[in-house]
Amino acid sequence: MFRLMHINLILATRHCRNMATVTTPQIAEEVSKLLDLKAKLNDDNAGPQKFIIKTPKGTRDYNPEQMALRLSVLDKIITVFKRHGAETIDTPIFELKEVLTGKYGEDSKLIYDLKDQGGELLALRYDLTVPFARYLAMTKLTNIKRYHIAKVYRRDNPAMTKGRYREFYQCDFDIAGQYDLMLPDSECLRVIAEALNALDLGSYKIKINHRRLLDGIFATCGVPQDKFRGICSAVDKLDKASWEEVRKEMIEEKQLDPVIADKIGVYVSKHGRSDLIKELRDDVELMKQATAVEALNALELLLKYCDIYKLTDKISFELSLARGLDYYTGIIYEAVLIGDNVEVGSIAGGGRYDNLVGMFDVKKKIVPCVGISLGVERIFSVLEAKIASSGVKTRTTEVDVFVATAQKNLHEERMRLITDLWDAGLNAEQSYKKSPRLLDQLQHCEEYGIPLAIIVGQSELARGEVTLREIKTRIEKAVPREKLISEIRQWIKNSQKEF
Amino acid sequence: MFRLMHINLILATRHCRNMATVTTPQIAEEVSKLLDLKAKLNDDNAGPQKFIIKTPKGTRDYNPEQMALRLSVLDKIITVFKRHGAETIDTPIFELKEVLTGKYGEDSKLIYDLKDQGGELLALRYDLTVPFARYLAMTKLTNIKRYHIAKVYRRDNPAMTKGRYREFYQCDFDIAGQYDLMLPDSECLRVIAEALNALDLGSYKIKINHRRLLDGIFATCGVPQDKFRGICSAVDKLDKASWEEVRKEMIEEKQLDPVIADKIGVYVSKHGRSDLIKELRDDVELMKQATAVEALNALELLLKYCDIYKLTDKISFELSLARGLDYYTGIIYEAVLIGDNVEVGSIAGGGRYDNLVGMFDVKKKIVPCVGISLGVERIFSVLEAKIASSGVKTRTTEVDVFVATAQKNLHEERMRLITDLWDAGLNAEQSYKKSPRLLDQLQHCEEYGIPLAIIVGQSELARGEVTLREIKTRIEKAVPREKLISEIRQWIKNSQKEF
Repeated sequence: MFRLMHINLILATRHCRNMATVTTPQIAEEVSKLLDLKAKLNDDNAGPQKFIIKTPKGTRDYNPEQMALRLSVLDKIITVFKRHGAETIDTPIFELKEVLTGKYGEDSKLIYDLKDQGGELLALRYDLTVPFARYLAMTKLTNIKRYHIAKVYRRDNPAMTKGRYREFYQCDFDIAGQYDLMLPDSECLRVIAEALNALDLGSYKIKINHRRLLDGIFATCGVPQDKFRGICSAVDKLDKASWEEVRKEMIEEKQLDPVIADKIGVYVSKHGRSDLIKELRDDVELMKQATAVEALNALELLLKYCDIYKLTDKISFELSLARGLDYYTGIIYEAVLIGDNVEVGSIAGGGRYDNLVGMFDVKKKIVPCVGISLGVERIFSVLEAKIASSGVKTRTTEVDVFVATAQKNLHEERMRLITDLWDAGLNAEQSYKKSPRLLDQLQHCEEYGIPLAIIVGQSELARGEVTLREIKTRIEKAVPREKLISEIRQWIKNSQKEF
Repeated sequence: MFRLMHINLILATRHCRNMATVTTPQIAEEVSKLLDLKAKLNDDNAGPQKFIIKTPKGTRDYNPEQMALRLSVLDKIITVFKRHGAETIDTPIFELKEVLTGKYGEDSKLIYDLKDQGGELLALRYDLTVPFARYLAMTKLTNIKRYHIAKVYRRDNPAMTKGRYREFYQCDFDIAGQYDLMLPDSECLRVIAEALNALDLGSYKIKINHRRLLDGIFATCGVPQDKFRGICSAVDKLDKASWEEVRKEMIEEKQLDPVIADKIGVYVSKHGRSDLIKELRDDVELMKQATAVEALNALELLLKYCDIYKLTDKISFELSLARGLDYYTGIIYEAVLIGDNVEVGSIAGGGRYDNLVGMFDVKKKIVPCVGISLGVERIFSVLEAKIASSGVKTRTTEVDVFVATAQKNLHEERMRLITDLWDAGLNAEQSYKKSPRLLDQLQHCEEYGIPLAIIVGQSELARGEVTLREIKTRIEKAVPREKLISEIRQWIKNSQKEF
């Protein structure tokens, strides 16, 4: 009953709060009384919890098994980023609200705002790209190759079964600087390929397109210039929706002439490689658009560089690729798994955004950028499913040896011994019970995949020895105390060779 | 002028918002008009930025040098945590507001709330301990040893020169489970010592005390029970304030009898090791307090275990140590640097908190916990100062070799060559310009500490060779293209041996 009253009071006060700007002093007084009453009620109930313990909607904890997988995935990705010479930076989890305003188009409504507690108006970062651009403008850096792995926040309706959350990791690699055409862009595609190969996710393809080619196509089809971004965002939905649905959105929501929509439909069904570039070059109407000519030259060069980077069989030039975000200005790309994992959708994406840094610079100084973002949450989902079906247990610790006792009250002996192991830099664990059962200790080793156990016993101690046991084979041998560390090190060395 | 108007409007609207609960419909109408005007103004100025680009108050970006240092510090700490067999977990950056309520005493006002955008009321995490306790209660785990390295948020008045920020990293290691007295507690002290040793910060001491001993002392001195936490929080200030100031707080703010305050003053000036335990055992009045007897037994056992763990010379039993947070129930500790770095204050701390998990459990099931938190921001400050004074440059990338050209338009040759290096897993970089100047390329190697450069030239290519240059010595040699990778690998192997 208390809980019910509590909820009603919250509803009552919240209702009043929303009405606040049109309220009268009398209402404010009532609210104040209710709040007092509520505070009193809370005091009465200081004991047991009155709410359900959970993480916020769309978020989750990562348990040790999930973290072990995540860290190994991130480690592989970082290895690739470092192979290409990237530095890393970090930025705060929140930004001044103004920094994020006007950067995400329709999706701006998904930004998490912080409460105005006096001082600056803040919002949680929505991606890592806008903070990166803000960082570049602030530091006046004209070139940098950086990676950034961190969480971002979107008040989306979470589809958590599909690996979509309100809090999720992004893994970004970007190259900023005034460089020659397609040299940084092609390396970004190479980085995507190396990362996906390292993660062993199965077959994938990288779709590429060019924003200015889409602009040229829209112009050729007769789309009014002010509708370009809206139509582009409709085309972007083609990876999830059918052409009929997208056509409907263009005509009904975006008020596009059906004849124009159908012209677009012909273009966005096309995909290929050099053959498609050739086909488009033969399109006399399209070639009247300077942006299309420029984009095709860029795409042709990109395909040539991809060939040198041994990426040709992964690349697919697809006119239906549009990318949702407003800030892209050139090449865009997106990697998707093919074969068994089609339903996962895009697992990496990115493109060129030459004007974003300038939006933060007082003198509008341009720093051209191109980058990629790996969709690690989806990658985690794929790998978690793979691991679950394989039945292999992920180790969550890196303990080499467990120090056990077979008899009671030998904990101080154990502690003396484990001190030596720690001093030698070995990863060693023990029970925090004075007299644990041997069986429990060995079971702990099995459960956590600890390969070795030292068994400390009274009679062995008297002889200056301990028992070293290999958990998997259950083979035990007596080892002189002073040779223990070198013995363990030798065992670790040998076992690493086996891999 | 536009900017000035803009600011005035913001001030005007904010002022009105604060008055909202006592306002009239007329005011609300005026506010609405002002907001419209403001929106219109913003539209007119959609071009250049109207605000100063900065990070939110009390936060900062980490540049590549700072990140390189941070990652190396965290890596050393993680190595120690893993040496002791800890797993890692992660929790969301925000929690339901109720999860944080009533856990931090006076400091609750420093919690960052998220704006109510419909749905749950959320707040940014204030530490990693409360989310850990919430995690344990949710998962019903009865024992775990976990570390967690992540950012936490406090709306404090930042003293950024002293390494205090509103967004900062915490590095926590905790042992949860029903275990034997002082076994997990002493290992926590050992972990602090190993971490501080690994970081090579200079001399330090670890102060220890026991919350129940403080309770016993307060009772002996005649502090009323309901003032225990308040007086404890006053004692906690002794590391920054003089006894006179703390005494004044006790008497004036906390309404304590000056006679009682003076009795406390005598106790909290005491420090020592086993000798102090002995002295307190001879205190007949204190020994009438069961909590004091219990705490002294625990402390005595802890000192014994610390001796086994070779920590004796680091430990100091100090009755002035109180720790600010409400949730501690047993042993508490805090590490401080001594010698040159006194001004940095506490760089690690922690203690036992046996009742926190129970606060989240419907059946109030107890999971005893003890843990440590390393103050890495302060550690970063100390090490940054050290590095700055040493003049040594931190490497921010791990590039082994830079692929350079001495002539124009050899970029495709470069790209072919670097593809082979990447395929071999080597960390390799190149210019994103088609025809960069050789000098610029070699300067880049110097600047980033890249040890090797390959120089691709027309005549060498014709001979099937490239030039391999050691940057530091400027020694160059011709290497057959097919032997290049093994040559570089050999060089890396040899250079690693030198360390």
